Amino acid sequence: MEYRIGLVGCGTVGQGLLEILLKKKEYLREKLDFEAKVVAISDMLKGSLIIPEGIAIERLLRLLGQGKKIGDYLEGKPNDAERMDALEVIEKCDADIIAELTYTDIKTAEPATSHVKKALQTGKHVVTSNKGPAALFYEDLKKLAQENNLFFRIEGTVMSGTPVFNLFENSFAGNTIKQIKGILNGTTNFILTKMEEENMAYEDALKLAQNLGYAEADPTADVEGYDALAKIVILSNVLLGGNLSPSDAKREGITGLSKEKILEAKKKGYRYKLIASTRKENGGIEAGVSPQKLPLSDPLAGVMGANNALTFDLDLLGKVTIQGPGAGRTETGYSILIDMLAIHRQLSKQLIRR
Amino acid sequence: MEYRIGLVGCGTVGQGLLEILLKKKEYLREKLDFEAKVVAISDMLKGSLIIPEGIAIERLLRLLGQGKKIGDYLEGKPNDAERMDALEVIEKCDADIIAELTYTDIKTAEPATSHVKKALQTGKHVVTSNKGPAALFYEDLKKLAQENNLFFRIEGTVMSGTPVFNLFENSFAGNTIKQIKGILNGTTNFILTKMEEENMAYEDALKLAQNLGYAEADPTADVEGYDALAKIVILSNVLLGGNLSPSDAKREGITGLSKEKILEAKKKGYRYKLIASTRKENGGIEAGVSPQKLPLSDPLAGVMGANNALTFDLDLLGKVTIQGPGAGRTETGYSILIDMLAIHRQLSKQLIRR
Repeated sequence: MEYRIGLVGCGTVGQGLLEILLKKKEYLREKLDFEAKVVAISDMLKGSLIIPEGIAIERLLRLLGQGKKIGDYLEGKPNDAERMDALEVIEKCDADIIAELTYTDIKTAEPATSHVKKALQTGKHVVTSNKGPAALFYEDLKKLAQENNLFFRIEGTVMSGTPVFNLFENSFAGNTIKQIKGILNGTTNFILTKMEEENMAYEDALKLAQNLGYAEADPTADVEGYDALAKIVILSNVLLGGNLSPSDAKREGITGLSKEKILEAKKKGYRYKLIASTRKENGGIEAGVSPQKLPLSDPLAGVMGANNALTFDLDLLGKVTIQGPGAGRTETGYSILIDMLAIHRQLSKQLIRR
Repeated sequence: MEYRIGLVGCGTVGQGLLEILLKKKEYLREKLDFEAKVVAISDMLKGSLIIPEGIAIERLLRLLGQGKKIGDYLEGKPNDAERMDALEVIEKCDADIIAELTYTDIKTAEPATSHVKKALQTGKHVVTSNKGPAALFYEDLKKLAQENNLFFRIEGTVMSGTPVFNLFENSFAGNTIKQIKGILNGTTNFILTKMEEENMAYEDALKLAQNLGYAEADPTADVEGYDALAKIVILSNVLLGGNLSPSDAKREGITGLSKEKILEAKKKGYRYKLIASTRKENGGIEAGVSPQKLPLSDPLAGVMGANNALTFDLDLLGKVTIQGPGAGRTETGYSILIDMLAIHRQLSKQLIRR
């Protein structure tokens, strides 16, 4: 089956997705009966393009690699999409699926939420790695999707392409979740690892993370726990059926954690991690983010560097932990593909044969 | 949708499955549109029963809990199935899915393979936790299933209900596997954990494992690596498309590993684990089981006690590790359910809504 795809946002994640679609084109078609035709792209900085016959991905990636604009693809021919904003591109293009890949604004969830709504209102499935809409408006957007017989999928919002929602849906079905607990921010985990293993001061570890591109110039969202908070709110709402806002959950970052405290814990066989957790409690949901001292026997204690991990405590299966990348160009690009494949599986009765 | 289920083997796993079907009856019906009606059971020791209208699971479990026979369910009424062997029960019963839950004979894969064949030849899907058929005859059985438009699913053969095949199929689709590497035998991992953490001699740790029910009276299959070998052969054939026999893979157990060697490695920041691994190499597949010294930073090094874990090294997603139970009544019973749900998903276009 062929799916017409529209990309809103064509930065790291968008280009990561395009690279995968290019590299895996034949594999996806032959093994999974999945073909993606990219018919529209809109990026705030790089411009817009609508081509119903499909954009040649290789050529577009080459242009972007040379620092050119998306519209340069047309080599001077008129570009109607040039004057359109993202909302208009979403509405006008003939996509089956919109991939919403703009940057997260966790306070307003905009403009991503408007993009998602517009897509769902004009008959297009939505796949996104943007945490904003999922953290603030999951319930509404899910409902809007269902009313229109469409899918709204968000695998990439938590742990990039490391499976969380797809894992629960396909591999844990029938289980009731007692608790979810994890390391959902790679930057802080990297900093804590450096402080413990290389005896670095917080400031030095942060600077190293910034130099390596793990942390932003303003590291607040990571080190104060806002990023992990958004993710645990998403998990609470999607997997535990909650209706939380970020302000409903406790939040404590790692800035109050001294090297001395970390090394003292280490001596006693413990390790500090920034832990996000959620569970049902007295009819409500108790969710939060805070530094916690874990015994080394805890599977989460062994998660080092920029990795992420999540432990599901399930009534039938017990504790299952998945550990993998929490960010990255290809990894997050892949999260978009896996959600498109999930939509494909639902829409076709096609067996997956290897 | 209602599925008629036939159980071949009603020991720990079979009863674990029945308990789950009973406990989750309403959840499965309401949330997943899945209903299971058990229409036949055959057990070499406990007897047989065929009831097309469905067996009352609660009553049957109560009888088995009292040490009674399966035929006692009929309270003296004539039981035609009593004289049938498993093959005849499989043929005569009106099941949609046969759950093959007999004990593994890794040398002959019998009688399980005959059970699987009979089921597929008489139009019934097969779900099994028995390692024999999957390790020795996967290719043939898969082909037989496909020719008859049926499913042959084996989630429970590796890591019980902790997802492996379902994980790859649904959450890693599109990835090429560079390597799979894991801890696939809980008994030996328990023994190694005790030797390292509590300074126990091999013999004492083995005895403890036997007392706790982790190891059999004859521990050869576990400690000499045969169990892990069967599992890595299954992974090689199912996920890497190989056609290996157990004799094609290297095997070394833990009996040659002294406490001294383990403690010396520990001092240097390493930990011994019985590692099963497989990868494509020079057009063939290189698979094996052996004790290996892992740095503590390896996610597999942190897997303690009777847990299992598997690291997938994937071309798009990088390294993803899943850790969870590797055995157990409910856990393995659940592996059967999740495969039945996978069949259900394929047969219906039903959306999974939570």
